[in-house]
Order: sequence, then structure tokens, then C-alpha cells
Amino acid sequence: MSSAEINKNEVDIVIGALNADLTQFLTSWRPFFSGFHLIVVKDPELKEELNIPEGFDVDVYSKTDMEKVVGASNATMFSGYSCRYFGYLISKKKYIVSIDDDCVPAKDPKGFLVDAVTQHVINLENPATPLFFNTLYDPYCEGADFVRGYPFSLRSGVPCAASCGLWLNLADLDAPTQALKTEQRNTSYVDAVMTVPAKAMLPISGINIAFNRELVGPALVPALRLAGEGKVRWETLEDVWCGMCLKHISDHLGYGVKTGLPYVWRNERGDAVESLRKKWEGMKLMEKSVPFFESLKLPETALKIEDCVIELAKAVKEQLGSDDPAFTQAADAMVKWIQLWNSVNSSV
Amino acid sequence: MSSAEINKNEVDIVIGALNADLTQFLTSWRPFFSGFHLIVVKDPELKEELNIPEGFDVDVYSKTDMEKVVGASNATMFSGYSCRYFGYLISKKKYIVSIDDDCVPAKDPKGFLVDAVTQHVINLENPATPLFFNTLYDPYCEGADFVRGYPFSLRSGVPCAASCGLWLNLADLDAPTQALKTEQRNTSYVDAVMTVPAKAMLPISGINIAFNRELVGPALVPALRLAGEGKVRWETLEDVWCGMCLKHISDHLGYGVKTGLPYVWRNERGDAVESLRKKWEGMKLMEKSVPFFESLKLPETALKIEDCVIELAKAVKEQLGSDDPAFTQAADAMVKWIQLWNSVNSSV
Repeated sequence: MSSAEINKNEVDIVIGALNADLTQFLTSWRPFFSGFHLIVVKDPELKEELNIPEGFDVDVYSKTDMEKVVGASNATMFSGYSCRYFGYLISKKKYIVSIDDDCVPAKDPKGFLVDAVTQHVINLENPATPLFFNTLYDPYCEGADFVRGYPFSLRSGVPCAASCGLWLNLADLDAPTQALKTEQRNTSYVDAVMTVPAKAMLPISGINIAFNRELVGPALVPALRLAGEGKVRWETLEDVWCGMCLKHISDHLGYGVKTGLPYVWRNERGDAVESLRKKWEGMKLMEKSVPFFESLKLPETALKIEDCVIELAKAVKEQLGSDDPAFTQAADAMVKWIQLWNSVNSSV
Repeated sequence: MSSAEINKNEVDIVIGALNADLTQFLTSWRPFFSGFHLIVVKDPELKEELNIPEGFDVDVYSKTDMEKVVGASNATMFSGYSCRYFGYLISKKKYIVSIDDDCVPAKDPKGFLVDAVTQHVINLENPATPLFFNTLYDPYCEGADFVRGYPFSLRSGVPCAASCGLWLNLADLDAPTQALKTEQRNTSYVDAVMTVPAKAMLPISGINIAFNRELVGPALVPALRLAGEGKVRWETLEDVWCGMCLKHISDHLGYGVKTGLPYVWRNERGDAVESLRKKWEGMKLMEKSVPFFESLKLPETALKIEDCVIELAKAVKEQLGSDDPAFTQAADAMVKWIQLWNSVNSSV
């Protein structure tokens, strides 16, 4: 499958604008974004006017649009990196590709720029194999196959819910690691896509991600926010938490989550040492979240994505609510999200 | 960690000789096998004298040795590819590295020969991370780390039980796939090591493998043999079954299994189309094995590797015995293996 075979009408590229000047970002992505519809969502806390170069099929959404769609009281849920979720909510497309605005196309080992959009769509269109691990990575790639011993009954795979891309240069580290290893850069380009096995937990990053919105859209939910959260990724946990929910629900419904290609090149932004002065609350919340997700079992009656999110919210409130108010807020946000999703997506 | 830092006294390289002439094989591996102790086990059905070039620290074991150690009636369990297991049984070392005799060193993308022994030992000496998936692969590699959201309490990892290497050129396919895709070759060198998550099943191949014998030695058990099994890998299932046992027991005891680097270069051997004429019984047995391993839960009282194998054998007999006589035989072989292991390894 090549970029020419992709149905561009099925894809929305959602960009959360945390910086006003998107010139360099969009110019660098022009060869791969061209012909796709872009949804740019402006961080409601960003005051300046956005600077968007010409020649893109783009719709821009700002705080006013949010308030119109979800009401003034709900618009705060889309502040900072969470503004992306507004794009997920209002998109009408099958696939969403979302890349942070401090990333540019990476180069593969041969020196070619990586078409992250095409790679994400390929990942989503091909089946996933979460029920048995294939040691030679994605069996549907050209020249690859299932290795000896792989059960034949599992070789048709399952639908792919999400595609998690990776990062060259600045890796996606947490605040303490970033601050302690300011000089460390990721230079390792691993040429592989794989399905993360069912029941395995992983920290999904929102920096470079795509998903099948028709299949799992409502599971990408802005829910958990850190109290001291700033405007740099290493201070956030919203996407990691959302990813835990997404992976668990995908496992429950029999969908797969892939990781690996495509890479993007992440540029530096923010002062990591400054972040270290803040307590990284995410550390504590993850320690509580892991045993929760490990023991979580959604009821078998939960067959719709929306029901799964509601059931998950219920379990979060019951089991984690007393540990930290952030979890209660997350549970409430998840319930509200489903209400918004249903109202926005049923009114069309 | 470099090859110079490896304690060669802790490693046995076990080679199952299915071909009499090991000249090309050992010559190609000389740069990496030098200084290590080699255990060469001759397939008891192989009649010719072995041809072994000079300059290796090697002990050769034949049918006579097997009969001396395990008795004439038990020696048949070591026929064909299963002869390797005799080497596992009589080794006294901490680590075993085992590579099929139709493999030579692979080249990495830069054109350098891959030192598979050193890479395997590095994999085994570094911790594994089966309880949470790290998207940037092995976090203990130089330049790598745990990504944002990875729980801090899990960052010290767990002991690594086994290291599963991969294959360039001829991939490890089953008989039907090999026969249908005679021209297909694996050319994709994926530069990564990763831990396979806990509870995930995978088809472990015996072609290019290493393990910590002190930790899990008795779990590498020659048990399941196909009725029509020949002298080509694509007709065998013994290593895949052994790998399912090893992975399940490693999960139970809190150890990790890694896969990825090192690659070896696999040469052609045998006629795949000839194999297609035989019914590949492995297909049927895997379909039965998967739900078995999926629902298997070893008793919490099984804390020693030997106890785990015995308990697993018990479950195999009870739950799979009526499906196919191969499973009953496998269960019996597992019990016998532990008896042999205890007698051979307690008599020193």
C-alpha cells in the first residue's frame, strides 16, 4: 500500500496548536499533509493569533468554537495539550492522525523523509495480532510472514484500533528523566511495526499517534490532568492515562494497538531543569494506576465503546477515587466526555 | 558491555550436530566461539563420524554418552534436533547459547559480522521488563531509557530467563508456509531487543537461542515430537512447545523473555515442497495448545522450576491428553526429564 492508494477523504489530521506560529511546522509537513483535511485546534489559553501558511485544507477551532459546541463550562477540559481532543470530538472521519506541533518529519536510515501519515494509515488498515506475538514483527509487511508455530486460526488478525508512532532526537521522557539526562537524544531508528500483546500495558504517547475514530473514537478521552501541568510534554500525563484506557478497552473488545513506525523528529522546547523543580505528580498517579488496570475487568455486557468508557469511569471512581482527587476528576471527565460525544455525534 | 567483559567460563555453547561436517559452520563462527567451551551433541541417528576443525575447546557427545548418562531406553528422546537438550542437561554453566548448525554469522546493516554470543549474554545479563511495555524497546541499551509514563517501581526490571534471536535469509517458517513461499527471504534487520510482555504467548524458536541455565534450565524440555518429524526445522514443533512451557513458567516465576537481536544467517537445507506432502501435524497441535496455555494457571506453591514443569506436565495430561496421544507423550517426557535433570545435576 502506498500513499497514492490512501483515501484522503477518510483521514483528518488533528493538530493541537500550543504555539501561535505554525509556519515552520506546516511547511515541513507540506509534502505529506497536502491533500488531507487538517483540523487545527488552538489551545484556549493561547492569546496570539495563529500563523498558518497558505495552501492547506484547514479548519481552525478556537476557544469560541469550543464554547459553542460544548458550552463555556466544559471548554476548560481542552486547555493545553488537551485541545487536540476537541478535534477528535468534532471530526467526522474514519481515521485521525495527530502530531504535536514541535515535531517535523524524521529521516529514515537511507536519508528519506518519513511519510508519517501514510505509515499510520497503513498500520490502521492492516490487521493487528494482539493474541499471539510474532517474533518477526508485522506479519503483513511485504516480505514478512507468520513464523513457525504461529496458530493458523489467529493469522487473520483483528481490527487495528490505534497506531503509536515514535520519536527521534528528543525522546518522550518524563520530567525527572528529561532533566537528569538533558543531553540524551534518541538516534536509534528501529525499522519495525508490531502489535502490543493483549493484556500488556504500555505508556501511549499523544505526540505522534493515529487511531480508527469509527472503532474507538470515544475511548480517546481527555480525563487526567496533573495539577502542576505546564505546556511541555514531559509535564503531562493526559495522553498516557488516555492510552491506558484505550489499550484496556481495545483488549476488551478484541482490537489491537500497534507501535513502532512512523518516527517523527522532535525538536527541543522548554526548560527541563525548570520542570524538575516541580514535583512530577505523574509518578505517584502511575504507581496507583498500574495495579488498577492490571486487575480491571470490564463487564462482558459492555460491548460499545461508550459503555466501556462509562464502566471504566465507574471503576476509577470506586477503586482510585479515595487515593487522589485527580482520579475522581478523571472519572467525572470521562462520563462528561461520553455525554458530549453522543450529543455532538448524534446531531449530524 | 563488550565481548571482552564477558566471563567465558560462565557460558556453554551447545551445538546439535545433524550434519557430520561441521567445518564450514565452525569456521564461520570461529571469531565469536573462540575461547568459549563448546558442547557438540551428535544426533544419535547420524551414522557418519563428525568432522570438527581444530582450535576449539570442544567436547563431543554421541549416542554412547547419552546411553551412559540416561540409560539406553531414554536416549531416544534426544534424536534429531532434540539432541541439543542433552547438552543442556549435562552442562554445568550459568548460560547456554545454542545455534543450529545450518546458521552462520549475519551481517548488520553496516556490514559488520554480528557477534551473536556476546549479544545473547548481554541480553541475559541485563534485566527484562515483562510487566510493562517500553515503546522505545530495551531501556537498558546505551542511549535508551524508559519513556514517560513508565512506572518508576518497575524500572529495575526482573531477571532475564531467555534471549530469542532471529534469522536473516531463510526465516523460521512452518512447512506449509515454507513450501508455498519458497522464494521468500527475510532481509529486514530490525535493530532492537525487547522483552515480550508477561502473559503474551510467542513461538520461541530453538534455532538461535540462549538462556540462563541456573535460573530456568529444567524448563527447556524435549517433550513434544511430531509423528512425521524429519530433519528440517520446518517439520518440527519440539522447540515451539518447549518455548510455550518456558514462557509460561517464566511468567509464573517473575522472569522475562527477550526477543530480537542477535540475528544469524540461515542457509537453505532440505526440500520444502517435499515437506508439504506430509501433513503438518504441528498445525493441529498448536490450535489445541493455545487455549490450554491461555487458561493455564500454575499453583502458587510451585516455586521451583522443577515443580513448575511437573505441574505443567500434570495439566497437559489432564487437559490435553485425550485430544492427542502426542500430548500424553509430552507430559510423560516432561516428568522423565525432571527425574533425569535431578539425577544428573545432583550427582555432582
